[in-house]
Amino acid sequence: MLNNIFALKGTFCYSKDSQNLIIRENAYLICNNGISEGIYEELPACFQGIQVIDHTNKLIIPGLIDLHLHAPQYTFRGTGMDLELLDWLNTSAFPEEARYAESDYAQKAYQIFTEDLKQSPTTRACIFATLHTDATMILMDLLEDTGLKTMVGKVNMDRNAPSYLMEQNASTSAAATRQWIDAVSGRHYQNTFPILTPRFIPSCSDELLILLSEIQQEFHLPVQSHLSENPGEIHWVKELCPDSLFYGDAYDHFNLFGRDHCPTVMAHCVYSTEEEIALMKKQGVYIAHCPQSNTNLSSGIAPAARYLREGLHVGLGTDIAGGFSLSMLRAIADAIQVSKLRWRLVDPSLKALTLPEAFYMATIGGGSFFGKTGSFEKGYELDAVVLDDSSLPSPRSLPPLTRLERLISLSDSSNIIQKFVCGNSIFSNTEDR
Amino acid sequence: MLNNIFALKGTFCYSKDSQNLIIRENAYLICNNGISEGIYEELPACFQGIQVIDHTNKLIIPGLIDLHLHAPQYTFRGTGMDLELLDWLNTSAFPEEARYAESDYAQKAYQIFTEDLKQSPTTRACIFATLHTDATMILMDLLEDTGLKTMVGKVNMDRNAPSYLMEQNASTSAAATRQWIDAVSGRHYQNTFPILTPRFIPSCSDELLILLSEIQQEFHLPVQSHLSENPGEIHWVKELCPDSLFYGDAYDHFNLFGRDHCPTVMAHCVYSTEEEIALMKKQGVYIAHCPQSNTNLSSGIAPAARYLREGLHVGLGTDIAGGFSLSMLRAIADAIQVSKLRWRLVDPSLKALTLPEAFYMATIGGGSFFGKTGSFEKGYELDAVVLDDSSLPSPRSLPPLTRLERLISLSDSSNIIQKFVCGNSIFSNTEDR
Repeated sequence: MLNNIFALKGTFCYSKDSQNLIIRENAYLICNNGISEGIYEELPACFQGIQVIDHTNKLIIPGLIDLHLHAPQYTFRGTGMDLELLDWLNTSAFPEEARYAESDYAQKAYQIFTEDLKQSPTTRACIFATLHTDATMILMDLLEDTGLKTMVGKVNMDRNAPSYLMEQNASTSAAATRQWIDAVSGRHYQNTFPILTPRFIPSCSDELLILLSEIQQEFHLPVQSHLSENPGEIHWVKELCPDSLFYGDAYDHFNLFGRDHCPTVMAHCVYSTEEEIALMKKQGVYIAHCPQSNTNLSSGIAPAARYLREGLHVGLGTDIAGGFSLSMLRAIADAIQVSKLRWRLVDPSLKALTLPEAFYMATIGGGSFFGKTGSFEKGYELDAVVLDDSSLPSPRSLPPLTRLERLISLSDSSNIIQKFVCGNSIFSNTEDR
Repeated sequence: MLNNIFALKGTFCYSKDSQNLIIRENAYLICNNGISEGIYEELPACFQGIQVIDHTNKLIIPGLIDLHLHAPQYTFRGTGMDLELLDWLNTSAFPEEARYAESDYAQKAYQIFTEDLKQSPTTRACIFATLHTDATMILMDLLEDTGLKTMVGKVNMDRNAPSYLMEQNASTSAAATRQWIDAVSGRHYQNTFPILTPRFIPSCSDELLILLSEIQQEFHLPVQSHLSENPGEIHWVKELCPDSLFYGDAYDHFNLFGRDHCPTVMAHCVYSTEEEIALMKKQGVYIAHCPQSNTNLSSGIAPAARYLREGLHVGLGTDIAGGFSLSMLRAIADAIQVSKLRWRLVDPSLKALTLPEAFYMATIGGGSFFGKTGSFEKGYELDAVVLDDSSLPSPRSLPPLTRLERLISLSDSSNIIQKFVCGNSIFSNTEDR
């Protein structure tokens, strides 16, 4: 039993709630079977003798949750960024995703992606694969080995896509999805879980959404998709779904938009209407706010601060490769930055995101989609990222909150020296320090 | 003579003009006494036998020019970013700058700054120090040793600043400036040059600006300052200078705004009026566009694309510590990103900056403030940055322009493996590669 108990020593930073960060300097976090037993100034008597992993003077934050990214697009991140969403899909995303029909290519590309994700500050993620079942299984196998907790979706798309990247019709798409769910259940993964992934309304026929809804109810799967990202896309959805009251209503019509038995995460929500916002709140839909992607694809700036302050579920996503950076620390900084520009240029009544708010989004905000995760409070699953800021020297000593703020803006992968998921160390780079 | 001639081999990327990037794959760039002799597919017969520094398959770009940054603020970059300009100056910038009254602190802090600048993609920079003459000389001594080409300014400020960071009056400020110019001339620097640095209109009395104009004319110094950054600041300048037609006119009134004998660089120009823009164009004033700072301090987004396309001089600046990143590659990416948001949110008639345009700004655009620099064409001073992108693996081979685009978005300091200024290697990190 004691084998599964250990303590992490260091300076802990985590969210109490969306307005307050807690700092515990050089304290002990007890991990019992992957679950936090809380933080203590001194090692309690009942835990004397357990292993202490000593990161004195390092900062330790909860593992960050990336609520939205496209694994196959990692190969072209940071390139071809001069187009808007629909042109970018046709020019960059679709041709690249088509390559994953080849398992060799998928293996090579996903190997690079999963290794980098493992070394990033992310511990959990909602991931789009491609429509290819084999390639999706390759990705899931590789992710399982990283120790990261992920939800991965074989993508569904049966209309309005190039012939080289489209399923023949609704039933073949649904059949492939059932085959994929079968394959997943045969693998008995510990870390990697399927999530239903209709690409977005323009790519999915009504017939397909009906079949996916049946699959969702049969297997109790969560759902991920895109929502109200770009004006051109929204206009297109209106044409495609003349009977829908708004974009989100087109998902809701097929029972793929939250409610009790369908945990749902929707990426973007840059232009959600009042009705859409109200429905997301009512039905507990998660919003994956992707500030870098919304900038790179000239989509705009989502009112993420409003969503958070009005009590909607909102987390952050890198949206690789609409976003080019895999770092969720950068996503925090980006979210704050664009919220300032939105305040200045769009709506001075919506104050910019504060650091505690953006940090909350990246931890508990998105983490609750995975259960009790994103915090160090007692009872939470213990995901942790150990940050070494010695590459950022200062002529004077800095308080922990200032050090955290600096790392959010300035860190690169070299600052991440160890990572825990459910109490397991999945990555350590502490040898030469 | 041959000792001063060598060739760089690699894949060169540089601007032909503001609309076109030139790529020369695995070619030879000849450097003769610090000046480019042009790029050749093969080593010309007349250069056979010269040293070839072989960076085959690496990307080589011109050294980047940072037109605006505050060296003393490097210590707190990435922190305290929740305020607008004027509050931020009082809360973060001024208290920190006051510490440079202590030479020991200045030495420690500037040592960190200059070492990081040396390892960044920057080869030339226009730098604000503080009002302290001694600390400014410490900074200049350290910069001289890096081999970087810099213009450094002792800051002038004699009003509207806290007593702990203000010169007594105009004459003491001017006298300290003359004393500083004397000290600089005694050092016989090869790389480091003085630039007159009235902080901004709110900090400088009319009397001071008259004295600085006399000094400018006597010593033929260039000038750097701030212009039209933030609505609150601009409103204040209107109150302080009721007779000025616009902010820039307040500098021009004292002959500190371009024209033939007063090379001038003004940071920001987020809210320049038509009259101000026309005067900057007419008098050849350089604009240092600082996209990250303008975002962090909620200032807004400057119409940099307009300035460039209308033929004004415009370069990029990191504006440490309004900006938190010292990387001019990131400044290129930031400039493109904010120009997209400006297109979407402010003015759909002004198309976003293209990659060639932003790259041009960071090289020739700002480089011409230093003379013939920022390009590899024959006759240019040879500043070069060698980039190794092997830390960004790809499952397929990528063309050089795509590799450059990726590095602009994704590079960190580990991707910079060698740097040349005027043909001298000032930094090399190629041992273990």
